[in-house]
Amino acid sequence: EILQQVTSFFDKTVAISAESKTLQGEHVVITAGPTREPLDPVRYLSNHSSGKMGFALAEAAAKAGAQVTLIAGPVHLATPAGVHRVDVESALDMQQAVAASLPDCTLFIGCAAVADFRAEQVGAEKIKKTADSDTMALTLTKNPDILAWVAEQPKAPFTVGFAAETQKVAEYAQAKLKRKGIRMIVANDVSNSALGFNSDDNAAEVFWYAATGEVTSRCFQQRSKTQLATDLIELISEQKHEQ
Amino acid sequence: EILQQVTSFFDKTVAISAESKTLQGEHVVITAGPTREPLDPVRYLSNHSSGKMGFALAEAAAKAGAQVTLIAGPVHLATPAGVHRVDVESALDMQQAVAASLPDCTLFIGCAAVADFRAEQVGAEKIKKTADSDTMALTLTKNPDILAWVAEQPKAPFTVGFAAETQKVAEYAQAKLKRKGIRMIVANDVSNSALGFNSDDNAAEVFWYAATGEVTSRCFQQRSKTQLATDLIELISEQKHEQ
Repeated sequence: EILQQVTSFFDKTVAISAESKTLQGEHVVITAGPTREPLDPVRYLSNHSSGKMGFALAEAAAKAGAQVTLIAGPVHLATPAGVHRVDVESALDMQQAVAASLPDCTLFIGCAAVADFRAEQVGAEKIKKTADSDTMALTLTKNPDILAWVAEQPKAPFTVGFAAETQKVAEYAQAKLKRKGIRMIVANDVSNSALGFNSDDNAAEVFWYAATGEVTSRCFQQRSKTQLATDLIELISEQKHEQ
Repeated sequence: EILQQVTSFFDKTVAISAESKTLQGEHVVITAGPTREPLDPVRYLSNHSSGKMGFALAEAAAKAGAQVTLIAGPVHLATPAGVHRVDVESALDMQQAVAASLPDCTLFIGCAAVADFRAEQVGAEKIKKTADSDTMALTLTKNPDILAWVAEQPKAPFTVGFAAETQKVAEYAQAKLKRKGIRMIVANDVSNSALGFNSDDNAAEVFWYAATGEVTSRCFQQRSKTQLATDLIELISEQKHEQ
């Protein structure tokens, strides 16, 4: 009988959690995947990113009842059910798509690995190698910082960023939280090849401004990206509603 | 009755062509896909290439009875049946894998879009942006020319290259045929977005040295990459056996 009560209790808990539409009424915009910065028609600069984490977040946000716009760089992933997807290539393309979706956006999650730099000049034709030169000098110019740009808009949505670091993860992530003027940052240590990038698993340490204005953090130990996405969406919606 | 004869004629033709093991006894090494040249643990330089053409060639060569080694850069494709696949990332990795497979290789098809340049120095940690600098200078150094290097080996296999061009396709391809010391070159005009790169269709103009020493060419109009691969393998085996 006790077993029955326990089982029934957990069944109810699961049912409630599955049905809790914590993001009902929100328009969530998520960027995912890498961007590609063309040097010429055949060459490009990019970042490692499978897009899996951003797609998992889009799926979790849709399940939480949100209207979801997923702005994706070049990835090989299926669009989650109920999600509106916009495919882009470069950082400038991505910024344009973000700008178009901002007017009624209430929550922005910048999960894309946006290339920091693009070629100053893009060749219209394929750059030919010259036999007499063994090196090539490339001048790169900074791409817009989409995350900081969203956060500084007059009616900015609740803005969440990601930080992929290989060292001093907590230090760099907190600096990024402040520098970019965002509300929350999800930090990954990508030096661990079992996690991040192309892996199906991930771990994260999240930093955010609590209602008191203090930076608070929570650790999420290694789990599937799907599970981590669900956990992050729960934390994000909690914090968003508190503020 | 005439219809029956015609049908029977074509049935025989198809049967013969499907069964003709024109590459029996050959060890074919094919490179496919792009290479990725790391700048640091998160950033890289690459080329557009889905790998579809190289994978289709590997499949066609295996069907023609060859032992096939497919050396593939980062792509999202399944390994064709009966093909031995080696996955690589950078041009230096690819050269190493090619070197390992050369000793008993009789036919080499360089279909990969190898990055011409790599970073002179690869950062062990993620390169941090500095707020005060809007540009970044990158010094690139030339990668080995795998195709030319294979062709100049003492017991070089019959070597076939690919040329993706956006202009003066025939001129550049013939210059490449001579400069690289290879036997045949397959030229694609990648300025047509309906073909090449990520498309399932392709067209090509092939240039090779005939037995007379003269450069001869053949055009393959737009068709599926699978069909083009079968047609190219037929032409390659024809020319290889003639010489």
